[in-house]
Amino acid sequence: VDPARLQSSRDTTAAEAQRALDGKTKPPGSLGRLESLAIQLAVIQQTLTPVVDRGRICIFAADHGVTAEGVSAYPPQVTAEMTRVFARGGSAIGVLAREAAVDVEVIDVGVDAPAESLPGVVHAKVRRGSRNFAHEPAMTFEEVERAVEVGREAARRAARAGVQALGLGEMGIGNTTSAATLLSALTGAPAICTVGRGTGIDDAGLECKRAVVARALSYHAVTMGAPGSIDPRRALACVGGLEIAALVGAALEAPGHRMVVIVDGFIATVGVLTAARLAPPSELGRILPALVFAHQSAERGHGLALEAFRTLEHGAAPIHLRPLLDLGLRLGEGTGSALAIPLLRAAAHLLCDMATFEEAGVSGELRR
Amino acid sequence: VDPARLQSSRDTTAAEAQRALDGKTKPPGSLGRLESLAIQLAVIQQTLTPVVDRGRICIFAADHGVTAEGVSAYPPQVTAEMTRVFARGGSAIGVLAREAAVDVEVIDVGVDAPAESLPGVVHAKVRRGSRNFAHEPAMTFEEVERAVEVGREAARRAARAGVQALGLGEMGIGNTTSAATLLSALTGAPAICTVGRGTGIDDAGLECKRAVVARALSYHAVTMGAPGSIDPRRALACVGGLEIAALVGAALEAPGHRMVVIVDGFIATVGVLTAARLAPPSELGRILPALVFAHQSAERGHGLALEAFRTLEHGAAPIHLRPLLDLGLRLGEGTGSALAIPLLRAAAHLLCDMATFEEAGVSGELRR
Repeated sequence: VDPARLQSSRDTTAAEAQRALDGKTKPPGSLGRLESLAIQLAVIQQTLTPVVDRGRICIFAADHGVTAEGVSAYPPQVTAEMTRVFARGGSAIGVLAREAAVDVEVIDVGVDAPAESLPGVVHAKVRRGSRNFAHEPAMTFEEVERAVEVGREAARRAARAGVQALGLGEMGIGNTTSAATLLSALTGAPAICTVGRGTGIDDAGLECKRAVVARALSYHAVTMGAPGSIDPRRALACVGGLEIAALVGAALEAPGHRMVVIVDGFIATVGVLTAARLAPPSELGRILPALVFAHQSAERGHGLALEAFRTLEHGAAPIHLRPLLDLGLRLGEGTGSALAIPLLRAAAHLLCDMATFEEAGVSGELRR
Repeated sequence: VDPARLQSSRDTTAAEAQRALDGKTKPPGSLGRLESLAIQLAVIQQTLTPVVDRGRICIFAADHGVTAEGVSAYPPQVTAEMTRVFARGGSAIGVLAREAAVDVEVIDVGVDAPAESLPGVVHAKVRRGSRNFAHEPAMTFEEVERAVEVGREAARRAARAGVQALGLGEMGIGNTTSAATLLSALTGAPAICTVGRGTGIDDAGLECKRAVVARALSYHAVTMGAPGSIDPRRALACVGGLEIAALVGAALEAPGHRMVVIVDGFIATVGVLTAARLAPPSELGRILPALVFAHQSAERGHGLALEAFRTLEHGAAPIHLRPLLDLGLRLGEGTGSALAIPLLRAAAHLLCDMATFEEAGVSGELRR
């Protein structure tokens, strides 16, 4: 598809959706963010009657060698244990997904446990956990490619199932450390701006985590490239994680299938940011308008990760970097994505189902 | 009920709900505001397994004589016209309520149209619109009492129907002018802090609206009392509206029936604030903990109206003055309340349905 033609067709749909909303029985603009969300859905689906009937949360799960440095409040086996809880539905995301009537797909990209010990999970293990990036690259390029492909395949599977809204989630003890390091590498921001408490480490743990991230950044600096001219593929391999690479793949693939991509909190945002940095400029105009940031995470680096999208916009329609919800969540698993689903549905239904002033016989002419 | 005993039973339930949440398969506190919401629902319903199966949005509708001063972007007949649209389901609240699976009850407290012209509406008209408070009191005390009783009866009707979550909404061309004047009277804040664009008046209209509010405040100053020692009942009669008085009644009545009261935007918040100022101190400890502010409205005075609750807390458990959602809505009708319902349900289900670390066999002990 010619990018200029794509953009023009998007602009036309956006203008038509705006006009349709302005004819509804309400003061113009009075539904605020729900109106821009409805327009975004119309543009993604290229229709004035968008639907969000089928939603899915993909939880990419993997372990992290860097947990050997004592960066997490929980032991690494919790990744496998929680992966089993997801499959049984007793987790927070299980509860929220049922409530939002979306399905959950748990994908083992790199959990450090035998596949047969994880029933009810999509088996796509690239290796049993990434390497400890305090001392060596977390992944080889080939492992990164395979993990990205796991994410792409998950997006294609969702598209084949008729999913219109793909929520990105993750599970991986140690993955805020990986995401913080990756975010520092991509933005040049120091560890103090990107490292937070994750699952809830104490002050001493936070100090240690910051030091691990700072050391890893210098250790991999030559390979990754200088801030400003960093190679995002190398950064992902050096300090990323298998589930983060899968998030990259899903974010690259889903927009081509007319799915809205609902980005969860800190880890998912860093994954999608990495995808946007890796994508060819011609793809960015499709990826960025497909994104909805679900919620403002309580994890420290999330605001910075969102801000980092500003430098990417390349003249495409502005994306809403302000997340839909701000509830102080810091759990991951796609919980924020699940909570955002009812708002997407509401926006789509307002555009489809509200009466117009004309249909309703209401005096829509402003008096001024 | 002895207030001290009530408080102690609330404290016990809150502590037990907190303990239950801390045992769930997630880091402590990681569900943020949803955790405090779950605890609030547990306290209101006095159970560790709260439910929000049945929700209802009450839309109190009335007209305002003050529209004669040219304060609104729409002509006053829009109140009756929109009341008919509500009954047919084509309004924004109709769409959002269907999506949230809650019912909508439209109550005519004072629409300036014959009852028989408003099918599908609860007929409880006190009079056809309040008087123009630019020149005389909007209502007599007797009219206020009757309108308050309409709201109380709506809350009792909801309780009889098994409603656990009562959303407060309103419709009334001119009612941001009435609410702004009432808020100024209750807080002493000048018109510039309380008057906004309502349905969307232009700059000249905004100037005019501010002047109308400022003049009304001086006109009624002697009757209402000085700021600081204002009589909220007199203020409500002088510059309030029939639907605002009904909101007061609903807010006074609903908490006694173990319902959570979901306060919509600017008008509903001013109504509930007035109720809190009117309530005897012994009742405040029941009313304030029943409130959930649904969304931060884009209407100017809403932040101030929320802040005004701070002076009321009287040692009761702190209430969350920060609304759940911030989507730039400025429509009223209870639209924000309807959008908040899925979050309340999510919170209740997390407390009821999530597995504990023990049940799930997950290593819940923090490593620190």
